[in-house]
Amino acid sequence: MKRIAIDMDEVIADFAGKHIKLYNALFSDSLTTSDLEGHRLWTLRPHQAKDILEILNDPMFFRDLDVIEGSQEVIAELSEQYEIFIATAAMERPSSFAAKFEWLKEHFPFLSDSNFVFCGDKSIIHADYLIDDSVRHFKRFVGQGILYSAPHNIHETGYVRVKDWEEVRAHFLPK
Amino acid sequence: MKRIAIDMDEVIADFAGKHIKLYNALFSDSLTTSDLEGHRLWTLRPHQAKDILEILNDPMFFRDLDVIEGSQEVIAELSEQYEIFIATAAMERPSSFAAKFEWLKEHFPFLSDSNFVFCGDKSIIHADYLIDDSVRHFKRFVGQGILYSAPHNIHETGYVRVKDWEEVRAHFLPK
Repeated sequence: MKRIAIDMDEVIADFAGKHIKLYNALFSDSLTTSDLEGHRLWTLRPHQAKDILEILNDPMFFRDLDVIEGSQEVIAELSEQYEIFIATAAMERPSSFAAKFEWLKEHFPFLSDSNFVFCGDKSIIHADYLIDDSVRHFKRFVGQGILYSAPHNIHETGYVRVKDWEEVRAHFLPK
Repeated sequence: MKRIAIDMDEVIADFAGKHIKLYNALFSDSLTTSDLEGHRLWTLRPHQAKDILEILNDPMFFRDLDVIEGSQEVIAELSEQYEIFIATAAMERPSSFAAKFEWLKEHFPFLSDSNFVFCGDKSIIHADYLIDDSVRHFKRFVGQGILYSAPHNIHETGYVRVKDWEEVRAHFLPK
């Protein structure tokens, strides 16, 4: 059985949606997701980068992120034909561990928690595929990287790209 | 550069030492480490297994474990010639995440936290070697398993075995 590792933020969890909303409220700004094309929020507003990143240190930030549309259904289908692991770079924000674990248990109860991986450098992941929004994780990854579209990566080229979970389904479960 | 993944409990952190001490105090027993040969504490005292395992759910249990003798020095030496990752089956006890992370930062400050992995099924680890006290993690591991001796695994055969960190040094850094 082939194995697919799947990232959390921006792939199954709507990280940027909540971050931009909190940022706008805190700084009386009115950025939209489309403003993030080619940028991260903290590179788009570099003079506020410290405060923008500080938002993420709230231990509960990751607990109530919206689920990315289609991810639950498609991952449930994939899990019948592939071994599924969730691999998130949680070491960057240790305060997020508990919230990320609880979020996964709530929204992906059909996955075993023995298949959750909190790591940093994703080259440690032994899988055939890695679906991720950050191209940096593909550099040393042993399998095939699949770039999940997010505003910040929209100008990246040279990767297999999927724009939503319908495209993930079509890629891995062709009719 | 070859990569070595290293388990935490019973390999670099003296898990059983603290567990048996707390158990003896709680249950007025006088077990010693040698009583654990071929057993886990909870299989040796099955009628108290639930309470014995409950001890591990204290979020701080893993915060002040003693460091296994020689592990810091030898891992520091190994890290000059190998890429070192710490891989612990933390998903079994999500309450341990923060304590395990802080323990690693305190006792292994020369390792990058991007090389820490909290997982469940260690077949997800992409490394050339895995030093672990639990043979179950070797079954589907892609590289070479190295069994680190602990009382509970003393009767296991068929694995490359190291009895302490001096033997790890001799294995990986022969003169």
